[in-house]
Amino acid sequence: MTFARLRAAYATGVTPREVVEALDTSDDTVWTARADALAAADDLPRRFPGEKPPLYGIPFSVKDNIDVAGLPTTAACPDFAYTPTVSAPLVERLESAGAILVGKNNLDQFATGLTGARSPYGTPTNPFDARYIPGGSSSGSAVAVATGAVHFSIGTDTAGSGRVPAALCGVVGLKPSRGLVSTLGVVPACPSLDCPSVFAATVADATAVLDVVAGHEKADPWSRHLTPHTAAPRRIGVPRDLDDPDFAAAVARLERAGATPVPVDLAPFVAAGSLLYQAWVAERWTTLGDFVTAHPHSVHPVTREVLTKATTYTAADAFAAMHRLQALRAATAPVWDTVDALMVPTVPRTYTLDEVAADPIGTNAHLGRYTQFANLLDLAGIAVPAGFTPGGLPYGVQFLAPAGHDPALAALATAFEERVEVLLAVVG
Amino acid sequence: MTFARLRAAYATGVTPREVVEALDTSDDTVWTARADALAAADDLPRRFPGEKPPLYGIPFSVKDNIDVAGLPTTAACPDFAYTPTVSAPLVERLESAGAILVGKNNLDQFATGLTGARSPYGTPTNPFDARYIPGGSSSGSAVAVATGAVHFSIGTDTAGSGRVPAALCGVVGLKPSRGLVSTLGVVPACPSLDCPSVFAATVADATAVLDVVAGHEKADPWSRHLTPHTAAPRRIGVPRDLDDPDFAAAVARLERAGATPVPVDLAPFVAAGSLLYQAWVAERWTTLGDFVTAHPHSVHPVTREVLTKATTYTAADAFAAMHRLQALRAATAPVWDTVDALMVPTVPRTYTLDEVAADPIGTNAHLGRYTQFANLLDLAGIAVPAGFTPGGLPYGVQFLAPAGHDPALAALATAFEERVEVLLAVVG
Repeated sequence: MTFARLRAAYATGVTPREVVEALDTSDDTVWTARADALAAADDLPRRFPGEKPPLYGIPFSVKDNIDVAGLPTTAACPDFAYTPTVSAPLVERLESAGAILVGKNNLDQFATGLTGARSPYGTPTNPFDARYIPGGSSSGSAVAVATGAVHFSIGTDTAGSGRVPAALCGVVGLKPSRGLVSTLGVVPACPSLDCPSVFAATVADATAVLDVVAGHEKADPWSRHLTPHTAAPRRIGVPRDLDDPDFAAAVARLERAGATPVPVDLAPFVAAGSLLYQAWVAERWTTLGDFVTAHPHSVHPVTREVLTKATTYTAADAFAAMHRLQALRAATAPVWDTVDALMVPTVPRTYTLDEVAADPIGTNAHLGRYTQFANLLDLAGIAVPAGFTPGGLPYGVQFLAPAGHDPALAALATAFEERVEVLLAVVG
Repeated sequence: MTFARLRAAYATGVTPREVVEALDTSDDTVWTARADALAAADDLPRRFPGEKPPLYGIPFSVKDNIDVAGLPTTAACPDFAYTPTVSAPLVERLESAGAILVGKNNLDQFATGLTGARSPYGTPTNPFDARYIPGGSSSGSAVAVATGAVHFSIGTDTAGSGRVPAALCGVVGLKPSRGLVSTLGVVPACPSLDCPSVFAATVADATAVLDVVAGHEKADPWSRHLTPHTAAPRRIGVPRDLDDPDFAAAVARLERAGATPVPVDLAPFVAAGSLLYQAWVAERWTTLGDFVTAHPHSVHPVTREVLTKATTYTAADAFAAMHRLQALRAATAPVWDTVDALMVPTVPRTYTLDEVAADPIGTNAHLGRYTQFANLLDLAGIAVPAGFTPGGLPYGVQFLAPAGHDPALAALATAFEERVEVLLAVVG
């Protein structure tokens, strides 16, 4: 349900308590903790007797690698769990804006993975086809929004964790520019790449949430002051050699939305993304290494295998990876002189649970083909639904542009989304 | 000799050949190679029959880690040497601007060191007191300018190599913002920190050279487009707890030049600098490791010890160092809201050759106390003479400000330098 419909319901006299009581948070593969949402709902009219704040009465959830005072932060690893006494600033911002925290969502352990199948709490069910993965690492967040359990949720995105599950669950996944939303109170994965992200039903809703959580946090060394670029992108780079009817349909929609596709060579972008699970995996080891070393059997076996690979890289390997990334940044920079944004698939394909079980690392790597580079190349992104595959699964595309272009991308994604809605209304 | 005096000589009819013939490049501890400067001098009138380019007829040298077509690049390691077929773009720019290349200068091997005492070609003699080090790693470059063998020289600065020898030899050492002058054709030390630097007799001369060598190079992934800040700094941060009469005299001069000293806590700056010879040393190993491993006995023993320490760090150590640096960048950032520039000593003290021989690594580390952090915190800097110590050695200070403030620093250094000249004229 969109924020607009919920606000319309409130306008007819529905109460926050009634909204919260209607929510279904019973699925233990989606929810790792429940907040006292009824108390929060009952408090709202007292807290905001006059003008309503922007997210008044809108239920939301956070990924369980984000601190909420009084609830355990597990990162999907029970032995890692701790109970913080203060909430992450982004949670405080949302509650101050009137949003109602419903609970916390399951994830791929330590936010390491893109499948949704790396949690001791089980794999959330893909709402479109139970044979398929929901995507990760923000698996529970995407499913919670897709199934209407909440109106928005906050995930994280280090390599696609906020976009891949959005695509596979048919919702919007907004990955802000790094540093636009503080990661204070979020369990680090790769601090130089980590971003909180937003799942919602529409671009407008995701953007309304971003407006609340964005802002410089003095105590966060990764927080940035970014100049916002607002001009709606017109020249949209698309992969030169992608032969995919679903993507071709999205390109046609893009053109009907008034934008011009420009073929670009995606190879240096993809090469930048591929650095992530080479020496760059050691960035995860800086914060998780001590725990994994001390408690190897507390860690999901696939996650342990992925993380422990970090120990095979030297400091020179890490610097060499940074040099390679710098070269790829330089190689991709001229593209932004010829296009205002990129449109790429969010995932190259999806997988069944069985396929992922058979090759958990290989399938995961392929899922990140179009998402990982955005983090390494310091891009903002938004993943939006773009209809369905012939097999009835959601199909999604991402819009990407350099850091600071969040408003520009929202404008483009909104135009694309409206075109999709119009077509859906016409077709069905 | 300043450029102005040389131009005045040319105006009286002196020829480039006469200027070159008067140069003394006989000292093999300063010079590793000589160019055919006479031919270049003779060519000048033919190449520039009309209007003279900005560096017409000005003799210069480059550090021997910078490529000059047809001359060996040794990096002060004979077994490492190669003979490039093309010159570094900065050399081409200087020659196109009419400057005359005289030769190449000795350095601390692989530009690793700040003493000048780490070269198989010997240690250039400090022109003020032969018992003392000349400073490094651009030892020969500083001595060549200080002794009048050339009118300017190009060094490099990864941790202070372009400023420490300037201070110890009583000349100006300009470290541009990283990426302002391309490092193409320069043997890498730490690619993410390396800058070509300028040695000259005055700030005006150094700045005239910078104007020629600065500029974006498409083929260099580290080249940057920087917005130049030109406003002359007024509020000048000085170390809060520095009890040093030489520095106090410099502060008094600064005030007489019209600026306001503002005490600042230098601790987080110094902490950032100290990262350089921890895990960050592995950045040098990315380009030098294979050579050192294959040819351990070709490497200066102190340099080998310093570089080989890189192999003791893991990739996670490297990422942890980057995280620590990010925290220190954030900790130092608010200082720039309260001051327009910093003034700090260039070196905390100097050492005799014997002191360095007794503790080559400890003395070197201390020499970099005030210079290393500029590279790690992405500052521009200029080291200028500030009189003499009671012992008769040159004393120098540095002005530092965030990348892009090169013109602002030049304005400040010029005001300070003029004040020094006025005082010298009055006193002596």
